[in-house]
Amino acid sequence: MHVLRLHCVDQPGIVAAVATTLSNNECNIEESSQFYDPYSGRFFMRVVFREMVDGCGANFKEDFAGPAARFKMDWEICDLTRPVRTLVLVSKADHCLHDLLYRVRAKGLSLDIAAIASNHMALGPMAKISDIPFHYLPIDGDKELQERKLGNLVAETGAELIVLARYMQVLSQQFCSKFEGRLINIHHSFLPGFKGAKPYHQAYERGVKIIGATAHFATEDLDEGPIIAQGVEPVDHAALPEKLQQIGKDIETRVLAKGLRLYTERRIFLHGNRTVIL
Amino acid sequence: MHVLRLHCVDQPGIVAAVATTLSNNECNIEESSQFYDPYSGRFFMRVVFREMVDGCGANFKEDFAGPAARFKMDWEICDLTRPVRTLVLVSKADHCLHDLLYRVRAKGLSLDIAAIASNHMALGPMAKISDIPFHYLPIDGDKELQERKLGNLVAETGAELIVLARYMQVLSQQFCSKFEGRLINIHHSFLPGFKGAKPYHQAYERGVKIIGATAHFATEDLDEGPIIAQGVEPVDHAALPEKLQQIGKDIETRVLAKGLRLYTERRIFLHGNRTVIL
Amino acid sequence: MHVLRLHCVDQPGIVAAVATTLSNNECNIEESSQFYDPYSGRFFMRVVFREMVDGCGANFKEDFAGPAARFKMDWEICDLTRPVRTLVLVSKADHCLHDLLYRVRAKGLSLDIAAIASNHMALGPMAKISDIPFHYLPIDGDKELQERKLGNLVAETGAELIVLARYMQVLSQQFCSKFEGRLINIHHSFLPGFKGAKPYHQAYERGVKIIGATAHFATEDLDEGPIIAQGVEPVDHAALPEKLQQIGKDIETRVLAKGLRLYTERRIFLHGNRTVIL
Amino acid sequence: MHVLRLHCVDQPGIVAAVATTLSNNECNIEESSQFYDPYSGRFFMRVVFREMVDGCGANFKEDFAGPAARFKMDWEICDLTRPVRTLVLVSKADHCLHDLLYRVRAKGLSLDIAAIASNHMALGPMAKISDIPFHYLPIDGDKELQERKLGNLVAETGAELIVLARYMQVLSQQFCSKFEGRLINIHHSFLPGFKGAKPYHQAYERGVKIIGATAHFATEDLDEGPIIAQGVEPVDHAALPEKLQQIGKDIETRVLAKGLRLYTERRIFLHGNRTVIL
Repeated sequence: MHVLRLHCVDQPGIVAAVATTLSNNECNIEESSQFYDPYSGRFFMRVVFREMVDGCGANFKEDFAGPAARFKMDWEICDLTRPVRTLVLVSKADHCLHDLLYRVRAKGLSLDIAAIASNHMALGPMAKISDIPFHYLPIDGDKELQERKLGNLVAETGAELIVLARYMQVLSQQFCSKFEGRLINIHHSFLPGFKGAKPYHQAYERGVKIIGATAHFATEDLDEGPIIAQGVEPVDHAALPEKLQQIGKDIETRVLAKGLRLYTERRIFLHGNRTVIL
Repeated sequence: MHVLRLHCVDQPGIVAAVATTLSNNECNIEESSQFYDPYSGRFFMRVVFREMVDGCGANFKEDFAGPAARFKMDWEICDLTRPVRTLVLVSKADHCLHDLLYRVRAKGLSLDIAAIASNHMALGPMAKISDIPFHYLPIDGDKELQERKLGNLVAETGAELIVLARYMQVLSQQFCSKFEGRLINIHHSFLPGFKGAKPYHQAYERGVKIIGATAHFATEDLDEGPIIAQGVEPVDHAALPEKLQQIGKDIETRVLAKGLRLYTERRIFLHGNRTVIL
Repeated sequence: MHVLRLHCVDQPGIVAAVATTLSNNECNIEESSQFYDPYSGRFFMRVVFREMVDGCGANFKEDFAGPAARFKMDWEICDLTRPVRTLVLVSKADHCLHDLLYRVRAKGLSLDIAAIASNHMALGPMAKISDIPFHYLPIDGDKELQERKLGNLVAETGAELIVLARYMQVLSQQFCSKFEGRLINIHHSFLPGFKGAKPYHQAYERGVKIIGATAHFATEDLDEGPIIAQGVEPVDHAALPEKLQQIGKDIETRVLAKGLRLYTERRIFLHGNRTVIL
Repeated sequence: MHVLRLHCVDQPGIVAAVATTLSNNECNIEESSQFYDPYSGRFFMRVVFREMVDGCGANFKEDFAGPAARFKMDWEICDLTRPVRTLVLVSKADHCLHDLLYRVRAKGLSLDIAAIASNHMALGPMAKISDIPFHYLPIDGDKELQERKLGNLVAETGAELIVLARYMQVLSQQFCSKFEGRLINIHHSFLPGFKGAKPYHQAYERGVKIIGATAHFATEDLDEGPIIAQGVEPVDHAALPEKLQQIGKDIETRVLAKGLRLYTERRIFLHGNRTVIL
């Protein structure tokens, strides 16, 4: 099973070109969804197709180059059966990592976790139990150097995706730009409310009746990247910050897993500071 | 803005045929979604398109007859700008009717309510305030006759859709069959739990922690038609049946409106005892 | 049925004093809830009681003055059977007003709406249908004067509660202070996100996946008063601002009704910039 | 921190007796909630109190025997700081067990898991990693014998609570009666809908738009015990049974954890076939 992902300026004939080229190459459409953004005039499309004849997908890819160029498409074809090669960054909190490792093991999340890296040693044992290489990369006063090591690790492991599973360091603009669209963070807050530190204390002080978490692409400003998924839970006045934090951990875990599932299914399109999820 | 709705046995080339014929006729695709049911092998598709040239939709319709026949499609084209001509049936409870009338007036629901009919006189004044003809059709011991009058009213008003907005009479199999896919009921329960009468008392007795409501196509068995939309709310032990009923009314109102919105947007496909919502 | 509401610095013996004085006066406790805030050291309590003997509530009130003074309580007794005398302020949007009028008529909300006032004439007819006096109080360049008239109307009608049902004027600090704890606003956003104007456009721009609304006590800064109730709905990239606004209206309507129900049940305690809901 | 739990026929003076006896013994009330069921006339109360003087709780217990007898109370005092000694029963599915083990380790759930028992060997390794004794108790054609061994294990481990974390065997009436109120099951369905086997296939066939799970006390009929907690998620026509099952696992995990937290906080009261959660 493969997925064709594309976006371009909207114009007549796009869907016909896609469907006809697939059909001509004996690729059967299993799922298809699209979105036209009237504000930007941009058209997005995701098509899951099955090869009815061995190798016909390659022929399709060749054939599609023509229409793709004509429509000036940004496009790619991904193999849905191959798990996404991933590097996970963590600090001390283990709830998200623990959940990811379980989901991957239980085939509930199609990731191939190449390595886990951290600025702390705390989660080394958890990596070890899962037989995943753990890289201790402390900051030691030189963040630039540490980020360079992170970048090297991405290169060495061949990771496509970098997951910030409660990694408590702000990444540089340079790093975020380099890996744009490949860095997914879980923010312990319902953005755009309660940016910054200690959101659960902020939430208690403010007396909110609902709390949440947000999975988003990381940008230099950790609290402002394009949102992928969000989740919420009702709370009341009696939930002290510690309780909010505990409820929050469950939401974070759930929302990060949801965001990553959308990624592995190749549903997320970056569109300026927004995402289109097809 | 028009919508093309179709379903047929899945086979290669359907999407290409649709998209190409639309494109050839200068109809631009604005939205498109589809579903393939692996259990039945059936393919469903909904395409919203805009005429780029006046009258091109009619040409498309003519052109599409060929491919439609070739693929043995069940298909139709609907005009999304025209409100759905509707007959509303009620009994004594007014919460759903009141909400529908408001939404129609506020342009939040694209219905053209031709008439309101009831086996009770209670809601006549509410119809009058909205300047909609009210037909009092009591059962008077002769249900068959009353149903015949209902059927005549459908014919006279030219109603396409019949909404059972808390209409408390079971309709005959004959009536339900005649208007299959055109009769939408709101069931005061979260189907398939708590069928039958007094669901809120049943829910209290059973001590459930969540209650709900279901909008579905009516079949002879009022509790068993294809489900269109469902909604729920959490409740606790302290919610007595009266309170559950009050919460339930809000859910019913909301869920019926949601189901009707899906209908007016031509998103619902009947598929055996299920619905596909595209 | 009456409710005793109190708060004071926490100290041993409060519940015993309340329960014993009620019991001695033949008042039976039907519901009781309390909250101790460890951050402020303050204790809050709400007790619903039934008079087992006619007039025993008055005796209780007299008897309770002693313990109340000893514990330095802020306290009051309210009659739960008496609807809350209310003034509703609106501008042009009618969804919240329409819903409130229906709920009051259907006995789903225990308000006695004394009058409706507005800076626009648009909703006069809706008030008229419900036989509620409508006061057109335009700003006409003199906001101070208009607010004075509003204040007079509160006095004349004997309204205890003032509901801002999509009233689109910022009230002065003086007005908000004067009616502290009696002014309930519905904010068309999920606070603290998206303060200010056009929150649904902000939400679209930001690409959020959940939108919400907030009922809160109004303070000078319309976006910052103590939160009473919040509600949310999931949305996706395809929901344009107009659609978000429509979904938002439904949330606003529901959340305002919820906040007002909590008020009529005398469950809300103001506590600095937070609320305690018992 | 201790909790006093009681229920009895409603009558004047209960709260006063409780609060006064606590106060006289220097026990400070931290939380208190109660419920009166008008259908049965029964009164339920949960009071969390803190000893202001060492050992005063024991004095309170002694002193309270008098009023408790006078009001014919069913009552107990539990130590909230002591984890609940628990036996977990599993079969092959590991998602609930995995989650419970993590929560216990992360101090998010106050259980002391004495042992894990199973009719299959599959989850032995998971128990081993957590250093918890694993007992393989196959049915081997003699269910009565196996249940006797289970009963012995309960006795030997001193387990108060028995958690059926996706244990796929129906327990005998005798077993369920013996451990009434101590057996918590997670049902992979939103009761009372879809009882019995393969609920996710049933849900797909029926085309429901919401699925759920239920934590409840086990009775002989596995699908009918008193409900403790329920959770739901929206689904659509495109979710095939396998997908429903995956979503369902997440709901089951969450709802079982919620039900167990309520138990450890001593909030659950059995009341006929219902629960009261204070």
